[in-house]
Amino acid sequence: MIVSSEGTWQAAAERKRAEVAKLLGPYTIPGDAIPPPAELPDATNFPRAYLEPREIEFTEKLSIEELLGKLARREITAKEVTLAFCKRAAIAHQVTNCLSDVLFQQALAQADELDAYIAAHGKPIGRLHGLPVSWKDQIRVEGAETTVGYISNLGRKETAKDEALLVKELRELGAVIYAKTNVPTALMAIDTNNNIIGYTWNARNRLVSAGGSSGGEASLLAMKGSIIGFGTDIAASIRLPAAFQGLYGLKPSIGRLPWSKIAGSMEGQELVSPVVGPMGHRVDDLEVITKSILSTQPWLHDPTVVNMPWRQSETEAVAKHAKSGGLAFGVLRSDGIVLPHPPITRAIDETVAKLKAHGHEVIEWEPPSHKEAFEIIWSLFVMDGGNDIHSSIGSSGEPVVPQIANIYGSSPGHLTPKTVNESWSYALRRNAYQTAYLEYWNSTASKTSTGRAVDFFILPIAPTASYLPGQAIYPGYTGVINALDYTAISVPVTTVDKARDLAAADAGRQRGEYLGEMDEQVWKQYDPNLFHGTPVGLQLVGRRLEEERVLAAAAELGRCLSE
Amino acid sequence: MIVSSEGTWQAAAERKRAEVAKLLGPYTIPGDAIPPPAELPDATNFPRAYLEPREIEFTEKLSIEELLGKLARREITAKEVTLAFCKRAAIAHQVTNCLSDVLFQQALAQADELDAYIAAHGKPIGRLHGLPVSWKDQIRVEGAETTVGYISNLGRKETAKDEALLVKELRELGAVIYAKTNVPTALMAIDTNNNIIGYTWNARNRLVSAGGSSGGEASLLAMKGSIIGFGTDIAASIRLPAAFQGLYGLKPSIGRLPWSKIAGSMEGQELVSPVVGPMGHRVDDLEVITKSILSTQPWLHDPTVVNMPWRQSETEAVAKHAKSGGLAFGVLRSDGIVLPHPPITRAIDETVAKLKAHGHEVIEWEPPSHKEAFEIIWSLFVMDGGNDIHSSIGSSGEPVVPQIANIYGSSPGHLTPKTVNESWSYALRRNAYQTAYLEYWNSTASKTSTGRAVDFFILPIAPTASYLPGQAIYPGYTGVINALDYTAISVPVTTVDKARDLAAADAGRQRGEYLGEMDEQVWKQYDPNLFHGTPVGLQLVGRRLEEERVLAAAAELGRCLSE
Repeated sequence: MIVSSEGTWQAAAERKRAEVAKLLGPYTIPGDAIPPPAELPDATNFPRAYLEPREIEFTEKLSIEELLGKLARREITAKEVTLAFCKRAAIAHQVTNCLSDVLFQQALAQADELDAYIAAHGKPIGRLHGLPVSWKDQIRVEGAETTVGYISNLGRKETAKDEALLVKELRELGAVIYAKTNVPTALMAIDTNNNIIGYTWNARNRLVSAGGSSGGEASLLAMKGSIIGFGTDIAASIRLPAAFQGLYGLKPSIGRLPWSKIAGSMEGQELVSPVVGPMGHRVDDLEVITKSILSTQPWLHDPTVVNMPWRQSETEAVAKHAKSGGLAFGVLRSDGIVLPHPPITRAIDETVAKLKAHGHEVIEWEPPSHKEAFEIIWSLFVMDGGNDIHSSIGSSGEPVVPQIANIYGSSPGHLTPKTVNESWSYALRRNAYQTAYLEYWNSTASKTSTGRAVDFFILPIAPTASYLPGQAIYPGYTGVINALDYTAISVPVTTVDKARDLAAADAGRQRGEYLGEMDEQVWKQYDPNLFHGTPVGLQLVGRRLEEERVLAAAAELGRCLSE
Repeated sequence: MIVSSEGTWQAAAERKRAEVAKLLGPYTIPGDAIPPPAELPDATNFPRAYLEPREIEFTEKLSIEELLGKLARREITAKEVTLAFCKRAAIAHQVTNCLSDVLFQQALAQADELDAYIAAHGKPIGRLHGLPVSWKDQIRVEGAETTVGYISNLGRKETAKDEALLVKELRELGAVIYAKTNVPTALMAIDTNNNIIGYTWNARNRLVSAGGSSGGEASLLAMKGSIIGFGTDIAASIRLPAAFQGLYGLKPSIGRLPWSKIAGSMEGQELVSPVVGPMGHRVDDLEVITKSILSTQPWLHDPTVVNMPWRQSETEAVAKHAKSGGLAFGVLRSDGIVLPHPPITRAIDETVAKLKAHGHEVIEWEPPSHKEAFEIIWSLFVMDGGNDIHSSIGSSGEPVVPQIANIYGSSPGHLTPKTVNESWSYALRRNAYQTAYLEYWNSTASKTSTGRAVDFFILPIAPTASYLPGQAIYPGYTGVINALDYTAISVPVTTVDKARDLAAADAGRQRGEYLGEMDEQVWKQYDPNLFHGTPVGLQLVGRRLEEERVLAAAAELGRCLSE
């Protein structure tokens, strides 16, 4: 642990921040050139002033398939693509504080090798030849530290042997590894803050939360400092920051994508296991990367992965239904615990209208109580009474950030650990809930015009477009889906519009009526002026291990929303 | 709980045994007609004297496919088939004490309905029309109690609503439900004994253990009182009794077959989850039933089941390799903890020779230490310090049977429960072990002549053909495979031959050399005269969720052994 060799935890953190700043190198912008958040809430176009037109094209205009096509045809080099993303990532960091590790030198060396390879062999090294990919700081990458937001993890750089299987596999397909992104301490927050890198801002509105725990990844992507990146999700952590920053984010079911050598919090906890998934700008980008991962047969190396190759037939089945007769969607407007803010409600209304206009069927979704599922997912947060987290925090002497202290207290002993028998009882509750939910899903066959059960359902990702910094508190809308282990994706729908999404629109709220304390706390954060322009995403959900179907449905939903 | 309404636990058990005896009805044999075990160790042909030639044919000669064919073509009726199996099951119980519930009346009524259906419609009701199926007493069946071997579970008959999904699904396909079979208290033993039904004997050698925990099921099958039945397996419980009684038993991977509404011990424990699987006389019977289950799409109703239909292409891939160039097998001769007895070693030698003679390749299997995996699987037995088991035992006042007291003590407090954090550490050890094992498996590509990794590996099921009653102690050879979650099957290979399987053959043993206490305890049970004629099975193992491949390989292995 670095603390002993570098002295205090502050010194360790300072060393790390200085290292990150130094590695930005030539892409460092003078501090006074960076406008404060209040002056430029949406910073996503700020990097343009520092980029060549071709760099803007690479980072903003191309799908993965287009980029890979140009690389494969040698119209562009891996070096210039990598350089463009490094440059833009560096600027992204300076306006949102999104990076945890800067690996530009290694990435440029890797790009050189790729360019040499294609020159020598006349063909790409693999199906992702030259594609830059960014990584949440939890996924082990050669040459980078893996902090999980803990000071105590500083000081050790991963070797090639320790690299996460997912990184290793994509690297072998030709992906270029150039940056890692910031996370909250212990990952157990939906806001991104720690004592190492500090607080990460929402790139689309630097006055509000980036979301979390994959908040650094979302901010880097929203800044277009990345074309595709990976987050992880145990209750919200891919979908919520993706939605807060206008991105697509796929939360696969447990066992579809390789988790091997990804670090975590409360490791070994399996009531609901965390998953890794791609975040990006386009559904087809997410599909390309998911297919690429599965093409490596990760189940041969990661025992948690199911031996299920990409099933194109499932994609086609969705497309076929979409074209003839339409798909059937359920829609859940509120979980009965925290009511959505006006922009979320509007996003749902607009989505339903667009789906119907395109020939799809939408029915109200009335599932078993989400309250039960929220209790189950919450139980895993507190199963060990915070022992694991306090032990990792305590070993460096760092203070507990407020986002974590909210749940676990600022010192050990705040919560009582459950017994093994209690932990088993939660597994039984989870199974019973999953079973009841499946039967509800099946029962919707009696409610659709086709007599087929609903194909997918749609619900909010969060009750709000974002939270005030430090006040992100409710992962219920997403956590329920983890408890169910369904496949889900965040789909960008609209942005907050202060002219239309009036707080005053809700009469009950005006009378001070709330569903409970959490509902009140969330509602009181809503400020149309402050949130104006912040993206709003919705969650599209399929059954367990239906990644192909969910991606296909998200593509269809995106099409409906854009037409 | 029955104890309060029926008085003592003894009275409750007595009531149950009397009920079972009474329900045997006309198939009750006078006590003095039943030879004692020492006089007739192998009782499997004993029922013949009480059966009509056609009943012998139905119960002994037909595969499931042949039986279903005759039923579908209306050459025989469901009623006469059901009657034959009820009769033989009744006799089986009287010589081995294998049944826990007798459902003959319901089964005959069900058979009448099936016969009426086929008469009216001219076709079978479903793909298993008229197939009798038996069930381990842990699987909830309408109209039967589900004891899990606990007195405290007596007194409540399951309703249709509570029936296990697997039973319900097979019933809908036309299967006839006629009997349930005995288990050890709490299921956590590889010998079958409880305070309700008592001790179950091995049908092939009534002087030794039936094995467990699916011991009643194995004895009923070995008596040919069943054509196909279901057991469950968390460490040995399908494969070990199957091997001890000359049967095939498939232990699928977790999530392949539906577990919904199957009762258990230490429910909610998921370090290694129990699985349900078929036991029977022929590989093709196991394949037919497995395909039938998957045809019902159990993942639509059971959230633990992976949406993976039967993959005929996997079956064909194995058959193709078997025909051209041969399959590659690893062989593990000892786990380094308990050395196999001479008949087991001979079974391995013969199997290897036969495989090679048929053009298959066999290499020595030198995997990561099985000791580590045994510690992991053992940890789940004792994770809660026996709280769950002692609470279920204690609520009726019944004493702890020796098989359970060996592990959990005869009263609570014998073991210390682990903390939640300790339970997580075992999950991490399991994952690390699974990963290392996979990498070892992959590495065998460098050892085969084809450059392809080994397709399957073979190892003992137990170090012995059976145990002395009450002395069954070592589930290591099978438990390791549960820790790995590989698909495995027991394949009958030979029987103990006192003339060939001499104890004296092992020089080290003669000098009193042992690998440890367990090794010594197991070795000292070996008695060629006592064990003579007891079946010996071996374990054939595929990777996770490779049920199609493992069944296909077992068919090939069976072919090699029989030619």
